Amino acid sequence: MRVKLVVAYDGTEYCGWQIQPNGMTVEEVLNRTISELFHREISVIGASRTDSGVHALGNVAVFDVETRLPAEKISYALNQRLPADIVVQESAEVSPDFHPRFARSRKTYEYRILNRRFPLPTEARYSLFEYHPLDASRMNEGAAYLVGEHDFTSFASVHSQTNTFVRTVYEAGVRREGDMVVIRITGSGFLYNMVRIIAGTLLRVGSGLAEPEDMGKILLAKNRGAAGPTAPAHALTLVEIAYE
Amino acid sequence: MRVKLVVAYDGTEYCGWQIQPNGMTVEEVLNRTISELFHREISVIGASRTDSGVHALGNVAVFDVETRLPAEKISYALNQRLPADIVVQESAEVSPDFHPRFARSRKTYEYRILNRRFPLPTEARYSLFEYHPLDASRMNEGAAYLVGEHDFTSFASVHSQTNTFVRTVYEAGVRREGDMVVIRITGSGFLYNMVRIIAGTLLRVGSGLAEPEDMGKILLAKNRGAAGPTAPAHALTLVEIAYE
Repeated sequence: MRVKLVVAYDGTEYCGWQIQPNGMTVEEVLNRTISELFHREISVIGASRTDSGVHALGNVAVFDVETRLPAEKISYALNQRLPADIVVQESAEVSPDFHPRFARSRKTYEYRILNRRFPLPTEARYSLFEYHPLDASRMNEGAAYLVGEHDFTSFASVHSQTNTFVRTVYEAGVRREGDMVVIRITGSGFLYNMVRIIAGTLLRVGSGLAEPEDMGKILLAKNRGAAGPTAPAHALTLVEIAYE
Repeated sequence: MRVKLVVAYDGTEYCGWQIQPNGMTVEEVLNRTISELFHREISVIGASRTDSGVHALGNVAVFDVETRLPAEKISYALNQRLPADIVVQESAEVSPDFHPRFARSRKTYEYRILNRRFPLPTEARYSLFEYHPLDASRMNEGAAYLVGEHDFTSFASVHSQTNTFVRTVYEAGVRREGDMVVIRITGSGFLYNMVRIIAGTLLRVGSGLAEPEDMGKILLAKNRGAAGPTAPAHALTLVEIAYE
């Protein structure tokens, strides 16, 4: 059967999702743990290849296995073996042709910015600290320009490997909760570094270095140089992937 | 002049506030950093001696110094030298006879419990995980018995060193925010382990092992054995100390 996992992790200690030679990744730990549980070599297919340091509440992965263990019990068995910074939230049987990257989905990311005079140590692990006052309503206005089907070349790393830079953003908003400014964006999929470049550009809008309507002009430029810097990874969380 | 500091810290790596031989403490790091800044031996007096692993958004400390540096700039100078897990939020000149432990104050603590099927790695550092469903409204009902001036012997560690076990609790409540159950308690002062024993006892109320009205009976017993276990330190945060 094909098993779908919803996986939460603290990305601090990992070199991202995807297996790579330079360090430990979430995918590698999952493959090793699942293989140990079922006593054979098993590899997952992940939905979202989050960057080094990015966190997740609900990334998705699938793998194929023949087992008598009911699919919904696999989460418990894996969590007994996984390190504390990776926790399977849910396991379920899915159709054998379900592919987490190719199936249509809505992915939601949040980027958190602590905006106050001094940092708070208990917020430092999961948010960016910004001293300069941010106008969240300006940022929200700017984020609205991203909604829709667009060519997001300006908001993609020049190292992106993709056939097309066209993606659909369903929702994009910025809200302030006390000292925390939260950018929330839902889309069909995201290019390499896309949410972090959007965050870096909205930070410029929030601090007055750019206008909300510049977000629209930057999109039209189709040039990475038009957008702001790539904001740090540790403040980004993949919140949810909802399949149709 | 006497300088008052409001200090935030992530307590994970510290053996609590108070200097002790077995490991690094927040007080020790502050003393060392302040002494380095002013090139003489300076010791702080702290308001609340938080336990090993407990966090703070606003503990308070004072020290005396002769300096031309304006009191409100001392926060910036210290933060440049402090490790990232200790951040001074505010520095101000206070009356030379202000004593942070003896001056009348309202101290507020929060104890956070993540109550859902599986832990979330990104919440693990600052909350206790509890699988068993908790009824926050029952816990809130139980917490109400603590409000007022009482002898809190039942909710104090047997290792407490104090003249009197009488303390005043001004407010005590429990609320649920999604999967997070938050115990919030404000009082004139707290005995050794008091908030953690209250949390451990309210956990029993929330999971049905005790009744809300048992909180009143436990108070009257004046016996540590009548209350629940001491809940883990890492889920506790000293939120604020407000002076009259």
